[in-house]
Amino acid sequence: MLSDRALADFRAALGSERVFDDPATRRLYASDETPRQVEPEAVLFPASHDDVAVLVRVACTHRIALTPRAAGSSNVGGALPAPGSVVVSFECMRRVLEFDPDNRIVVVEPGVVTDDIDRLARSAGLFYPPDPGSSAYCRIGGNLAMNAAGPRAVKYGVTRDYVLGLRAVTGDGREIRTGCRTTKGVTGYDLTRLLVGSGGTLALVTEATLKLLPAPEAVATLRVCFNSNRAALDAVGRVMRQAVVPCALEFMDRRSIDAIRPTGAAEHLPPATQALLMVEADGAAQDLPRQIDALQDALTGPGLLDVQSGFDTASIARLWAARKSLSLAVKRIAPLKLNEDMVVPVSRLADFVEFIDATAHTQRLSVVSFGHAGNGNLHVNLMVHPDDADEMARAHTALAAMMQRVIALGGTLSGEHGIGTEKRHFVPQEIEPATLGLMRAIKREFDPYSLLNPGKLLPD
Amino acid sequence: MLSDRALADFRAALGSERVFDDPATRRLYASDETPRQVEPEAVLFPASHDDVAVLVRVACTHRIALTPRAAGSSNVGGALPAPGSVVVSFECMRRVLEFDPDNRIVVVEPGVVTDDIDRLARSAGLFYPPDPGSSAYCRIGGNLAMNAAGPRAVKYGVTRDYVLGLRAVTGDGREIRTGCRTTKGVTGYDLTRLLVGSGGTLALVTEATLKLLPAPEAVATLRVCFNSNRAALDAVGRVMRQAVVPCALEFMDRRSIDAIRPTGAAEHLPPATQALLMVEADGAAQDLPRQIDALQDALTGPGLLDVQSGFDTASIARLWAARKSLSLAVKRIAPLKLNEDMVVPVSRLADFVEFIDATAHTQRLSVVSFGHAGNGNLHVNLMVHPDDADEMARAHTALAAMMQRVIALGGTLSGEHGIGTEKRHFVPQEIEPATLGLMRAIKREFDPYSLLNPGKLLPD
Repeated sequence: MLSDRALADFRAALGSERVFDDPATRRLYASDETPRQVEPEAVLFPASHDDVAVLVRVACTHRIALTPRAAGSSNVGGALPAPGSVVVSFECMRRVLEFDPDNRIVVVEPGVVTDDIDRLARSAGLFYPPDPGSSAYCRIGGNLAMNAAGPRAVKYGVTRDYVLGLRAVTGDGREIRTGCRTTKGVTGYDLTRLLVGSGGTLALVTEATLKLLPAPEAVATLRVCFNSNRAALDAVGRVMRQAVVPCALEFMDRRSIDAIRPTGAAEHLPPATQALLMVEADGAAQDLPRQIDALQDALTGPGLLDVQSGFDTASIARLWAARKSLSLAVKRIAPLKLNEDMVVPVSRLADFVEFIDATAHTQRLSVVSFGHAGNGNLHVNLMVHPDDADEMARAHTALAAMMQRVIALGGTLSGEHGIGTEKRHFVPQEIEPATLGLMRAIKREFDPYSLLNPGKLLPD
Repeated sequence: MLSDRALADFRAALGSERVFDDPATRRLYASDETPRQVEPEAVLFPASHDDVAVLVRVACTHRIALTPRAAGSSNVGGALPAPGSVVVSFECMRRVLEFDPDNRIVVVEPGVVTDDIDRLARSAGLFYPPDPGSSAYCRIGGNLAMNAAGPRAVKYGVTRDYVLGLRAVTGDGREIRTGCRTTKGVTGYDLTRLLVGSGGTLALVTEATLKLLPAPEAVATLRVCFNSNRAALDAVGRVMRQAVVPCALEFMDRRSIDAIRPTGAAEHLPPATQALLMVEADGAAQDLPRQIDALQDALTGPGLLDVQSGFDTASIARLWAARKSLSLAVKRIAPLKLNEDMVVPVSRLADFVEFIDATAHTQRLSVVSFGHAGNGNLHVNLMVHPDDADEMARAHTALAAMMQRVIALGGTLSGEHGIGTEKRHFVPQEIEPATLGLMRAIKREFDPYSLLNPGKLLPD
């Protein structure tokens, strides 16, 4: 329970209109997109860097844990309140502090919606490459916390690659600035990229200087059907061995195709389709036919059933329809989705998908896999009934086996969702004790009272 | 002085053929490319990760400082021995441990020459983008320490962008592995990018997993002459505001043109030339004419005197002749070059070059500026006579004024050379005390006895 004194201090620091502890607000902020709920003691809505600095100092005085939150779209518990903590919502910090197209940078507060950054950039012929699936509503603060990414990562990289500098407040209230405003800079240690992906456990980011790129003039899309998972993933390997880097290389496995059949979204695919790739190229309109030809050459091989190409908005949307129908379709299978986003080397994807299929069979589970195949990043969705204790136990057995296999194949536990509360017990399988020890030491230096997002990322 | 006991322990640990303390070897390793000399107490030549782990433990026992060294090509004192230290040369650790073209990665020891990595990659249709000027002889360990870069950074980024994972030994002998082997991965804190650019002050890197890209099929080059520095730098701004990103955008200022005139290298340039840009595009051969057209359009503007293009090896080499003659030409001006590599936002380059000219005039100095204009990264070379105390004093006054101006313009002290011994007293101008405090805390966690490359990077 938050003491009256602490609440009064937060109100004195921020103004009472920025401090809520009523039951409705606490309930609203009790969960992110992870299927669990923990009510926070209160919710704070800072409006500026100075607000954040002052609220952290109050939290230090009273030793109150803080759960930072942007849009609350984490599916690994990144924004799930720690018991007894106070949520710090960045929704009111949504100013674009500076937009400088000549130097291709934008300086934003953490509450700015990711797509809004991209839209602003495009108004000046630029774009912001990272494109997580939630970009229409997620906020850049969450993207920074998790080092978010999306389909375009195969060509353009992840959030970390677009952060030049940060302003932030550490767990004991120190105000810091990291990095620089230029595309090169090697002064001091790289605290910027250390903070990106640290899940709000080291410091609360209050401003980010982001790098933008010139917007590609046009996009073209291929929808490619195969008669097996392996045929599709072998084609992914061929695409990644030639010179044209696609700006999306998305895979849907056999179970994904099965899932969309009842919705009608598979009716334009050849009936023998067991796996599908969505392949996109971007660049100058004049150069796209050459890129698409090269990609088609690479995609051609055993098991290819059908290739459809689209060069305009309407036909591209039509080609994506099957893929876009998937999220809703999988919800018909079971009410709960255990959503993993493991990564393996591209050359091991086919082996890994085979292992997933075998594990699903052994454990009698519905598992739907799709994802960013060009990065070896697979979204493995275990569709379960939370009330079925036996099924839940089998799901957790399957998950543990898959994590172990990912590590054995030279992969990593998470490509873009992060670790949060949900995967931290797996972390010691991937990171050795000496390395983990250094991470814990860094955590202590940034957050000596362990107040920032406790219970996340690092294992106990 | 190294005790007999310590020397004996190093010999017992590594074998006596890997431990040298004779005067000739100590003299040979007394300097890097910085014009200063400090003789180390001994030089160690580890042959493997295990050798490095064991030598660090001996160093800890005897509290002996270690100066890591790859090719010794630092020009900021990165490999200059600390007084009383022992040099750890990575020259014998030059194995390629793994080359996996299917997954576009290579795993190397720190002694591998940068160009050899690129050559190996190209044998499989790939390439290693970072291209420091010393790439023919510098070694990847030094590139990792300094976060090296070169002309291609404007399109492809810097060393840090190509490091997926590291194996390393901390200052107290802990053996760690950071990062992963895949192009995405968000498990734990990003220690990989923290170590890159840390100048060997946090850990000794023993293996690096590097990301490779598909090699561009062809290159085309433009040599563009202007009648003033500002005309050339305005053209840089226009290039960076359009969609075709060049893979080199190099600037030579008026003083650089003056410097090459006596060598005859300027004789093919229009006589009125006061500044020059080298602009390169790469990609599919079929697409290069389109890129070159777009670049020429962007380059066209007030003050343009001449554009020459080259699409084949011989004509490209001819176009680069003026630029390549510069390094030798500046040596005629004075025996010592104080070589800075400051960065300012691209839109402030012209203002900054004007300030450099004015400062050179006021302080009666020869200053030649050129560099990677697309990143705002300028190599400012103060040509001085080390025996002329008055000129040296004026040079240091000028340098201090330039550093101050760089910070005022929103820039950074170093873009790719690093800080080393030479620039660390300027660091507090750029980094605030709270942020510096965190860097020092991280240093203590990795290197509690302060044995790794003391006297470098962070100010006292």
